[in-house]
Amino acid sequence: MDKIRLGMVGGGEGAFIGEVHRISARMDERFILCAGALCSDPDRSLRSALDLGIARDRSYSDYIEMAKSESKRDDGINFVSIVTPNHLHHPVAKIFLESGINVICDKPMTMNSEEAKELIDISERSNLIFAVTYNYSGYPLIREAREIVKEGKLGEIRIIQVEYIQDWLTEPIEKSGHKQASWRVDPSKSGLGGSIGDIGTHAFHLSHFVTQQMPEKISADLSSFVKDRELDDNAHILMRYASGARGMIWSSQVAPGNENNLKIQVYGEKGGLVWQQENPNELILNLLDQPSRKLTRGSSYVSNKSGRLTRIPAGHPEGYLEGFANIYREIADAFFEAKAGKPLSKDILYPTSRDGLNGVSFIEAVIESHKNDSNWINLNI
Amino acid sequence: MDKIRLGMVGGGEGAFIGEVHRISARMDERFILCAGALCSDPDRSLRSALDLGIARDRSYSDYIEMAKSESKRDDGINFVSIVTPNHLHHPVAKIFLESGINVICDKPMTMNSEEAKELIDISERSNLIFAVTYNYSGYPLIREAREIVKEGKLGEIRIIQVEYIQDWLTEPIEKSGHKQASWRVDPSKSGLGGSIGDIGTHAFHLSHFVTQQMPEKISADLSSFVKDRELDDNAHILMRYASGARGMIWSSQVAPGNENNLKIQVYGEKGGLVWQQENPNELILNLLDQPSRKLTRGSSYVSNKSGRLTRIPAGHPEGYLEGFANIYREIADAFFEAKAGKPLSKDILYPTSRDGLNGVSFIEAVIESHKNDSNWINLNI
Amino acid sequence: MDKIRLGMVGGGEGAFIGEVHRISARMDERFILCAGALCSDPDRSLRSALDLGIARDRSYSDYIEMAKSESKRDDGINFVSIVTPNHLHHPVAKIFLESGINVICDKPMTMNSEEAKELIDISERSNLIFAVTYNYSGYPLIREAREIVKEGKLGEIRIIQVEYIQDWLTEPIEKSGHKQASWRVDPSKSGLGGSIGDIGTHAFHLSHFVTQQMPEKISADLSSFVKDRELDDNAHILMRYASGARGMIWSSQVAPGNENNLKIQVYGEKGGLVWQQENPNELILNLLDQPSRKLTRGSSYVSNKSGRLTRIPAGHPEGYLEGFANIYREIADAFFEAKAGKPLSKDILYPTSRDGLNGVSFIEAVIESHKNDSNWINLNI
Amino acid sequence: MDKIRLGMVGGGEGAFIGEVHRISARMDERFILCAGALCSDPDRSLRSALDLGIARDRSYSDYIEMAKSESKRDDGINFVSIVTPNHLHHPVAKIFLESGINVICDKPMTMNSEEAKELIDISERSNLIFAVTYNYSGYPLIREAREIVKEGKLGEIRIIQVEYIQDWLTEPIEKSGHKQASWRVDPSKSGLGGSIGDIGTHAFHLSHFVTQQMPEKISADLSSFVKDRELDDNAHILMRYASGARGMIWSSQVAPGNENNLKIQVYGEKGGLVWQQENPNELILNLLDQPSRKLTRGSSYVSNKSGRLTRIPAGHPEGYLEGFANIYREIADAFFEAKAGKPLSKDILYPTSRDGLNGVSFIEAVIESHKNDSNWINLNI
Repeated sequence: MDKIRLGMVGGGEGAFIGEVHRISARMDERFILCAGALCSDPDRSLRSALDLGIARDRSYSDYIEMAKSESKRDDGINFVSIVTPNHLHHPVAKIFLESGINVICDKPMTMNSEEAKELIDISERSNLIFAVTYNYSGYPLIREAREIVKEGKLGEIRIIQVEYIQDWLTEPIEKSGHKQASWRVDPSKSGLGGSIGDIGTHAFHLSHFVTQQMPEKISADLSSFVKDRELDDNAHILMRYASGARGMIWSSQVAPGNENNLKIQVYGEKGGLVWQQENPNELILNLLDQPSRKLTRGSSYVSNKSGRLTRIPAGHPEGYLEGFANIYREIADAFFEAKAGKPLSKDILYPTSRDGLNGVSFIEAVIESHKNDSNWINLNI
Repeated sequence: MDKIRLGMVGGGEGAFIGEVHRISARMDERFILCAGALCSDPDRSLRSALDLGIARDRSYSDYIEMAKSESKRDDGINFVSIVTPNHLHHPVAKIFLESGINVICDKPMTMNSEEAKELIDISERSNLIFAVTYNYSGYPLIREAREIVKEGKLGEIRIIQVEYIQDWLTEPIEKSGHKQASWRVDPSKSGLGGSIGDIGTHAFHLSHFVTQQMPEKISADLSSFVKDRELDDNAHILMRYASGARGMIWSSQVAPGNENNLKIQVYGEKGGLVWQQENPNELILNLLDQPSRKLTRGSSYVSNKSGRLTRIPAGHPEGYLEGFANIYREIADAFFEAKAGKPLSKDILYPTSRDGLNGVSFIEAVIESHKNDSNWINLNI
Repeated sequence: MDKIRLGMVGGGEGAFIGEVHRISARMDERFILCAGALCSDPDRSLRSALDLGIARDRSYSDYIEMAKSESKRDDGINFVSIVTPNHLHHPVAKIFLESGINVICDKPMTMNSEEAKELIDISERSNLIFAVTYNYSGYPLIREAREIVKEGKLGEIRIIQVEYIQDWLTEPIEKSGHKQASWRVDPSKSGLGGSIGDIGTHAFHLSHFVTQQMPEKISADLSSFVKDRELDDNAHILMRYASGARGMIWSSQVAPGNENNLKIQVYGEKGGLVWQQENPNELILNLLDQPSRKLTRGSSYVSNKSGRLTRIPAGHPEGYLEGFANIYREIADAFFEAKAGKPLSKDILYPTSRDGLNGVSFIEAVIESHKNDSNWINLNI
Repeated sequence: MDKIRLGMVGGGEGAFIGEVHRISARMDERFILCAGALCSDPDRSLRSALDLGIARDRSYSDYIEMAKSESKRDDGINFVSIVTPNHLHHPVAKIFLESGINVICDKPMTMNSEEAKELIDISERSNLIFAVTYNYSGYPLIREAREIVKEGKLGEIRIIQVEYIQDWLTEPIEKSGHKQASWRVDPSKSGLGGSIGDIGTHAFHLSHFVTQQMPEKISADLSSFVKDRELDDNAHILMRYASGARGMIWSSQVAPGNENNLKIQVYGEKGGLVWQQENPNELILNLLDQPSRKLTRGSSYVSNKSGRLTRIPAGHPEGYLEGFANIYREIADAFFEAKAGKPLSKDILYPTSRDGLNGVSFIEAVIESHKNDSNWINLNI
């Protein structure tokens, strides 16, 4: 099988998510990393690039140069992965799209919805793929959950409850030079949202991905518990759906004892389901007046929706990297199908620029509600 | 040890909570059931009474008669337990208080805060005990949680999150004659609150009991998912505290797979704790940068606050009845201390009429916020 | 309903299991404690008795006197509960049986099988009830497990695995005067078995109760890890059944972190089940190629075998005391049925003297195997 | 960084473990797959090879030809991974070792200890690496567990309890052509052990890896529950250690509801630990009279022994593939250190041919004990 040539912007020494993207790209051998502008500092960028087996002449310190240069090469990259702080997503994505290169972008997609819309326009006009790594939708049992809802096993949905709570920002670690923390609490780099941008958008995407419902209105109450922190580190968000359903998102980065506790619960007229990211190989399915069922990834009785994204048998746990790699796999499959002139298979479900825009619109609505004393704000998606 | 003579109003054949009160009263042998107006129907009332070993002449079908008659007897009851539907709590309590008899009343205390205040007045003027069975505060590890917060182990409290979700009202069982359901969804018997009255007030009491903080404002979004149901069966309630802390209560009776899932999480600057009613012998304590700790009821390292309310060793699970019985035990201890002219020991913590009023005020504020498009409402407690 | 008059031998100040028996007897109001020889010391015995509401003239310091005196009274006790250290079970039971009084005896029933057989003879000749408190068989979901096996849902049984592990004897606490520990590690009071007598017999009884199969042969390896301890504090026991099934019991009192961790697993051709005492309101049922099911006590879908021994709804946890009380309830029901001349209902399943003898024979076989280098020993039950 | 050139024997279409080895080799980019004799059928072998990006001229159908040919190439493979059924491990390993190529071999290493010793001799004489993929020792928290024992936190070890239970062979699926099942139940391909060879040796290796103790004697009881199955599908194995410690291994492939349930418990004088493979990101540490601690992979408080084998932060679960990949990483590190003339770092702990031999000796002793009515057999390791 041909491999997709991948470039990367950001993700040099000391980064976290860049390495996650690289392992994910490599897991199924559909991508090969060929080029990078890994840091803005040329020396560090080159050192990182060489470490990663990128040829010296394809290590760049300037992403504009990279876009231009790669777009001219016969063996230029097909995709760029953007793993920089948020404020760079838009300018980097724009130049690569304009250079005819497909984009995989970390979330949130942009600093505001205008930027997101502009990128959608460019990518759609150019027939380029624009994927946003809402990676939790890559977990096999999240696919199973979506299928269960879609098949109507829960009946009409009434309640959608998502919490995404962490503890790593409980103390003001941004003040002592913690790299990951520093830019995330800085509005100029992170955007309007603190916890809601960093993790709340994941929760929001998941709520939509699993239920295929989008709230009509939201009401939000944000806090910045840590002294001098400008952005929210805790958020309570209520949601009202046109169907009458109700929902809630609670995102927090100041809840000690929670490492990466993302949990989704969906309740309908006939049943409910519960999934937790820290134990992702289990999905709890409860049907009224029946024993609680624990569905496991890779088991004989789950559907092909989850089975097709599973690499190893049940009982051999898969984790975060495998779920993330599923997003890359789906993007690659979509790329190859498009290349072959085939219509996109319905099973392929990577998050797109539309999902990216939704996430940014969500952040904007949350901020607006919060500024208006938690009034209900139309989401306008 | 002398035994307290107990009467009961409500709790005849087919009741649930009456039997819980009786087992609780009996568990530690501090009470003896002597009289009852168990049903309004005289025959059924008598049959229930005789089954329970109540003498024929102390079985009443009319609670007013019972109050008058018992108050005249030398061996008349010291306490009455009121386990009727909510709308009767006030008239029953009033007549017994006026007859000089101490009261143990199920929650919510009354239909509105005026009624509650009246009962507080009477009981305080008469020096009578008025206890409200917010029984979850009787679980030993809830006492431990309270102590942990009080000692400052979590630092200043930032987030208080309580969910109390059930599934038994997912379908319109009130339409097919389910006794417990029927009165709970009937505003004339249940009051203003559906799920918020039945279980949300438990959650609210627990949030205060553990943290000793009372919200300043609340914002609520209620739903009645089941067709034709007048009262809420799902509620999302946000809370703001004067300290800057934030909280949330989610109560639901339409969440399939949740039998009696009451969970409290408290997070502070230095740590967090989690307790779940369905597994009440464990309390999770998380301190920053340390392994999660699981504290167990009855273990050597927990404090006397929980140890004194434990009957059997760690690993031998105690449950709902033992927790409920602890409320009765505390009430009895308070009664005997008062009788002996002693000041009330600080460890004795049964929920009082003040807690009862708080619960009713909470319901009223929730309803007001809901009617005002979820605006923030002062709680005025 | 008439109440059964109960006496108690043992269980005075500082005892653990005596209070458990008393709460259990009282839980459903079928028994009333009327007499006791609670300690051998007359003063302490009387003090304990008065505390418990026993009349002064029915407090005894000598159990022989008690048996004789009570058997002569019109209102003499119907049952005696024997909650002494093991070596007294036989002499106490014998005198009460000979006095025409039914017996409830803690486990293990006697010091050896000869003694047990003698008590069986006397009780059967006299038509008296002799119950042995293998209390774990009183848990509702253990009844459900038994029913599941009986109905063949698991197919033919292949593997029976029981572990009962604790940690309270990890250190030589018997040397520092710990009352519960001291007699348990003393062969003259405890008998041949240490952990196998104290908890292994519970595991053995449960393995039989749930599966209705009795091993043909056993092989055992015992250890006394704590210095100077004469009796075993850890035991590994393999079991072979005539059906070809295999089993294992692991009992330990030196496994730090295990408070009272009794766990039974049963596997057959078609399915398996798992139950753990520390979380007794759940029973896991696994059928081949189906999601794992969690059955909960009190739920709508469990059978009447467990439902009839449940006091409160699902989600309101019951615990050790309720399970223990079920044994007392069953004994009382058997007593009343016998009194009414009815045949014993098949659902009534309290452990009898036959179960008691089996437990003692088990201990003897384990010891014999251990002394013979873990050779397979016929169980001869 | 230079990459290690890897070849593979076995692992063609339809195989399971071959793909696991390939993903593991690729995860950290230390290996590149260059050659393979993936099937004995030339066409299928070539098809598999091309799919995997192996050049046409380095796809072999005969492993002897592969060994000879690769050993002559300048760019010949440095390592071969042997992922065939067990009976081929020895002949394949022998020819590659004799061709000067390092070996990574699946477990059990060989069909008998003679074969294993021969391979040790050749590899040690030739200074070649011979690794056996006891992959569970690659999980970070297993490293942490080993460190905890080594540091004496548990005190002197008393009990080592490992169970490895599965359900996939509950029914006679080998009769309906299940490829994985068929060779595993065939003594000519699998060797003397059924479940004990396939999974019991993993349990045995783990027991030694974590505690660094090797049993002196073992006693075993094996069963073949499925009709006509020649090899064991369930095994109970008792272990005695020179130190006085006791242990047990229970391996089963007929325990419905258990997918890949590998669990190790270690108890000492001062504490105990518990780890389960299906939830590998948690390690329970219990110290006497202290709350149970849950240690999580990647957290701030774990040691570098586990931290160095972690790719992503705590709360982002790693799984089976990451643990397996750690074995490959360690092998690569050992290779590079050796190449650089450095002594092997003490932290590098991949399982060697010595561990492979131990596993084979364990199987032989188990079989001998079983044939001798479960007598204690010296392990002679």
